[in-house]
Amino acid sequence: MRGTVLHAPGDIRFEDRPDPRLEQPTDAIIRTVATCVCGSDLWNYRGINDVTGPLTMGHEYVGVVEEVGDAVTTVRPGQFVVGGFAYSDNTCPNCRYGYQSTCVHGGFFNTCQAEAVRIPLADGTLIALPEHPDSAMIPALLALSDVMGTGWYAAVAADVRPGDTAVVVGDGAVGLCAVLAAKELGAERVIAMSRHESRQKLALDFGATDLVTERGDDGVAMIKDLTGGVGADAVLECVGTGESLAQARHAARAGGRVGFVGVPHGADFPATELFRSHIALRGGAAPVRRFLPDLIERVLGGRIDPGKVFDLTLPLDRVAEGYRAMDERRAIKTLLLP
Amino acid sequence: MRGTVLHAPGDIRFEDRPDPRLEQPTDAIIRTVATCVCGSDLWNYRGINDVTGPLTMGHEYVGVVEEVGDAVTTVRPGQFVVGGFAYSDNTCPNCRYGYQSTCVHGGFFNTCQAEAVRIPLADGTLIALPEHPDSAMIPALLALSDVMGTGWYAAVAADVRPGDTAVVVGDGAVGLCAVLAAKELGAERVIAMSRHESRQKLALDFGATDLVTERGDDGVAMIKDLTGGVGADAVLECVGTGESLAQARHAARAGGRVGFVGVPHGADFPATELFRSHIALRGGAAPVRRFLPDLIERVLGGRIDPGKVFDLTLPLDRVAEGYRAMDERRAIKTLLLP
Repeated sequence: MRGTVLHAPGDIRFEDRPDPRLEQPTDAIIRTVATCVCGSDLWNYRGINDVTGPLTMGHEYVGVVEEVGDAVTTVRPGQFVVGGFAYSDNTCPNCRYGYQSTCVHGGFFNTCQAEAVRIPLADGTLIALPEHPDSAMIPALLALSDVMGTGWYAAVAADVRPGDTAVVVGDGAVGLCAVLAAKELGAERVIAMSRHESRQKLALDFGATDLVTERGDDGVAMIKDLTGGVGADAVLECVGTGESLAQARHAARAGGRVGFVGVPHGADFPATELFRSHIALRGGAAPVRRFLPDLIERVLGGRIDPGKVFDLTLPLDRVAEGYRAMDERRAIKTLLLP
Repeated sequence: MRGTVLHAPGDIRFEDRPDPRLEQPTDAIIRTVATCVCGSDLWNYRGINDVTGPLTMGHEYVGVVEEVGDAVTTVRPGQFVVGGFAYSDNTCPNCRYGYQSTCVHGGFFNTCQAEAVRIPLADGTLIALPEHPDSAMIPALLALSDVMGTGWYAAVAADVRPGDTAVVVGDGAVGLCAVLAAKELGAERVIAMSRHESRQKLALDFGATDLVTERGDDGVAMIKDLTGGVGADAVLECVGTGESLAQARHAARAGGRVGFVGVPHGADFPATELFRSHIALRGGAAPVRRFLPDLIERVLGGRIDPGKVFDLTLPLDRVAEGYRAMDERRAIKTLLLP
């Protein structure tokens, strides 16, 4: 089969790779129906993370099961499956508490921009749909694999409640999905911080009630203006830089709640400031598996369409073009079809 | 009247001070019925905080109203009143969200180890009891002013839920009250970290089910042992040093919750660690006013007796002796009676 390999920053190739095969009785092999490029893939692509050798890429997927190990009981060949960017047994204590992304036997995918994928711990990772979905549903289901699952967790971590004023920092695919999640969880007002027209449009489409184009202290001042000087009940941080994390904290009201899902890059949280503001903080890699049953239902029922974050669709063998379009911000997110 | 003044580290004097008088129509003047020395007073007493000139001291009190300003409507002369260490209007947005310790018109007391005290914003600060309490109730009511209110907030900030395993870091008066609070909020297991026999005894009396004498990494290892390798659902941090904050974070399970009420001294929160652990964090100066009605009811109903934290009672004019006893750890907390 063929899969995506990053050989050096900027050097993405779609090339022959060994066929994945069952290695454990708990494995499944899926044929990829759709995969995509993630904003976090760009950290390697741009060389911001150290790239010391060839890296297989991709952690988002929907597919059809080809083969399962002897111990797999909940999915079978021929079924259409959805899964998150982390694999998990869904039975260890961390999983049972709802944090499958820290499963003690789990890990993270990095081979999904390929024609086939080995799924470890298939029972605890995949969810089989009752039937194959319409092809129009594929983008939305694929979005659950990471960006929608992560945006949802941002809203859950920020404990968005009905009637809340929520702020979303970051207008990438995750931030846009976070707007949708905040709206679904009942926020009355959703303020999206975005300065790009196409992203603003999608934010409004996903339920944003206000747009703030300013960043940093100016952005915080705008949020205060919009909230009678008080600040937001819930802030969903979807970037992970020191500046965006500070912006998120400062946009919250006294005792407000900040969910942070952007992988933090080089910024700690000042304890004295947190003490003074009383804000609550929770973050992390989204435990997508916890939310999948609910999110699949919302997609299949037509309640949400997070597939709209894909504004470029390419054949999988043109994956390099997909990276380039996102790197140059010509695309929000690239869908890849084998 | 006479009041307590710290002239230099270690130099506490009880001396003549101007009688407090109404300065604003929202003020009340109370005659102090009981006051006490706080662990946080020792930061100044020990010279850990810079002391550049004479400081009036004390932020805990119960008393009887002597006089009220024209705008005060909820308390009247002759009533026995309880209040927290911060004053607040209880009407500003921060107060309405339940964070009266960041009231936009509020502040913190620092004149309460005295025979009389001016209470700004009396309506939003004080609660009058229906009648004067038995003298046996005075210590418990006084404890609400800070240590019990703060221990309660630690439990609320850590979102202690029925059935939880809770860990309390710190065995000062606040930590001991936090044990009581965790128990009252339904924790099934309350693990107190303490190495002092008298404090261990009180922790058990307040509902601790387990004692851990180890600190730092060893203490965390013991918590893991006691929780099947998983960690605690809720951790109540009542110290504020870098070591104790780290101990608190590391004692929590994946996705666990940490409430921190010890004023942080020189330690920030590592963002990457928080991201990996998924723990929730909330801290701050306790909004005691939020909890007072409930806590007063629990005390008057005989449900809790946080007054047990006082193991030394002195006449107010021997306040210096009270500081010394706490500084030398001969007393957990000194009650002072004018």
